[in-house]
Amino acid sequence: MSKSSSYDSLAIGIDIGGTGTKFGIVDRNANVLFSGEMSSRTHSEVEGFIEDLYKNLAPLIEKVGGSGRIRGIGVGAPNGNYYSGTVEYAPNLPWRGIIPLAKLVQNKFQLPAILTNDANAAAIGEMMYGAAKGMKDFIMITLGTGVGSGIVANGKLIYGHDGFAGELGHTIIIPNGRHHEGTDKLGSLESYASATGVTLTAIEVLENSKEDSLLRKVPKEQLDSKKVYDAAIAGDKLAKEIFDYTGKILGLALANFVMFSSPEAIILFGGLTKAGDLILKPTREAMEENLIQIFQNKVKILVSHLKESDAAILGASALVWDMKG
Amino acid sequence: MSKSSSYDSLAIGIDIGGTGTKFGIVDRNANVLFSGEMSSRTHSEVEGFIEDLYKNLAPLIEKVGGSGRIRGIGVGAPNGNYYSGTVEYAPNLPWRGIIPLAKLVQNKFQLPAILTNDANAAAIGEMMYGAAKGMKDFIMITLGTGVGSGIVANGKLIYGHDGFAGELGHTIIIPNGRHHEGTDKLGSLESYASATGVTLTAIEVLENSKEDSLLRKVPKEQLDSKKVYDAAIAGDKLAKEIFDYTGKILGLALANFVMFSSPEAIILFGGLTKAGDLILKPTREAMEENLIQIFQNKVKILVSHLKESDAAILGASALVWDMKG
Repeated sequence: MSKSSSYDSLAIGIDIGGTGTKFGIVDRNANVLFSGEMSSRTHSEVEGFIEDLYKNLAPLIEKVGGSGRIRGIGVGAPNGNYYSGTVEYAPNLPWRGIIPLAKLVQNKFQLPAILTNDANAAAIGEMMYGAAKGMKDFIMITLGTGVGSGIVANGKLIYGHDGFAGELGHTIIIPNGRHHEGTDKLGSLESYASATGVTLTAIEVLENSKEDSLLRKVPKEQLDSKKVYDAAIAGDKLAKEIFDYTGKILGLALANFVMFSSPEAIILFGGLTKAGDLILKPTREAMEENLIQIFQNKVKILVSHLKESDAAILGASALVWDMKG
Repeated sequence: MSKSSSYDSLAIGIDIGGTGTKFGIVDRNANVLFSGEMSSRTHSEVEGFIEDLYKNLAPLIEKVGGSGRIRGIGVGAPNGNYYSGTVEYAPNLPWRGIIPLAKLVQNKFQLPAILTNDANAAAIGEMMYGAAKGMKDFIMITLGTGVGSGIVANGKLIYGHDGFAGELGHTIIIPNGRHHEGTDKLGSLESYASATGVTLTAIEVLENSKEDSLLRKVPKEQLDSKKVYDAAIAGDKLAKEIFDYTGKILGLALANFVMFSSPEAIILFGGLTKAGDLILKPTREAMEENLIQIFQNKVKILVSHLKESDAAILGASALVWDMKG
């Protein structure tokens, strides 16, 4: 009896990132029962990656009582397409072209699999378990190595006509601005408001200013957003200016997003949010400054409070509860 | 019998613009049975305007068999809020502050009334009767004196948490760019890609260039988008450059909108679209240029083919068919 009542009550969540892949088995109350991590980069062919994923997950599946306990597998991946189940031309993954990822996972695990992009998965996670619980209109922005996004309107994720909606990191905020190596575009949000962007801003600011800074002691090739953060916390003026500049551009972008879908809140997630008010204060100010009157002082900027390692798995697994059949 | 079968089968559509207000009685097959027009500007108090509106519509209502034949009244107005039924701080209307427009109309006509912003009404009109028929994801952009927008995703209009979503004309495309008198913001789409914006660009281009142009014969205060259009059609190089510049900014903005909601099409409507390929060609080119690969060559830019005077009324009346109760 107890076995039959818990049949089908678990889901697997997999979050494929540019560097690492996180996976876990989750129950309907968002408890991550078992989880693990592996590299996304050890195989240049996706088949080898799927093989490793299976080897890592099979023992966990056994621990919860076998695959009969599992309703399905939700996968979040950069450029993951919800409609087609494919990952298409993901600049940060080692596999080229169009990868039928959902199908490959489904065949290997013999379980239904569903795919979306990693930021969409995070948005679903926030809506079901996190800062966006109960909200019908919000925008999730992930500020990591890159900038991802998931948009919820009328209580539903926006996938667009082709499944690729929500690429806000690639919107152009500074026309003819900084070059983005991955996309070859100029002035996109991602080229400024990501960990990579902060590093590039640091290099520029140090070159264009004569002011003294703790960051001048760091060799150029070792500069990163963490070192800028440490310097800013230590009171370094230039380091603070770097976050200020980043926040101003992010805030301008957020104002534009608000005037698009008028969300109740914008949920920020990822490494850059650790800088706290160093980046959030200029972000909030720039957002308000660029909003027209009817939108001012009513959109919350919130930082995700889900445990970082769990949030991605939870979001991906949450896809499963919505699955048909 | 025939009377009872057609009971409740008509709707009134009202489109309140900055200059004029159009109204009509529409059947379920989008036939505008009777229509009329009046000024939006003869009354500084909204009550006088509603009084005039009633005087104009009452004879038409009688002609179709009385108000028992009419299911409700749909109103489109700048800054019209779907949730609250209010028009809030509309810079182009003579009535200040927050106007409970739906309630005022409902009380005067003793018929259910529903309000939305004018571009949302146009989007609904296009979805039901026009270029967006059958589409579940599209964006409507109205290029008139100002720039309005209505966004449909997952088959539903996006209103946002507060009813004000879809103010794409106010998104900032050129940071620290041209000043917008109505909003006091810098570099918004509306300050470039509207009839007003084209006029301002014409003045700038003529001042900054020494090149000969037909437009130099037009007194500065008489310059408008129509005269720029006439000059461009006559082969004037500077006039063509003005549309080129406008199209480039519009195309960049459209690329950003596509990367937000990945629409099947963008439907353009309003005065500026009359310039045809003079503006559409640079718009399309700039959009494609700023899109990342996964979005390229798949989003249609369409021009509304609804008769201009009917489209606004149809869109507003279409709100009524969705009404509850």
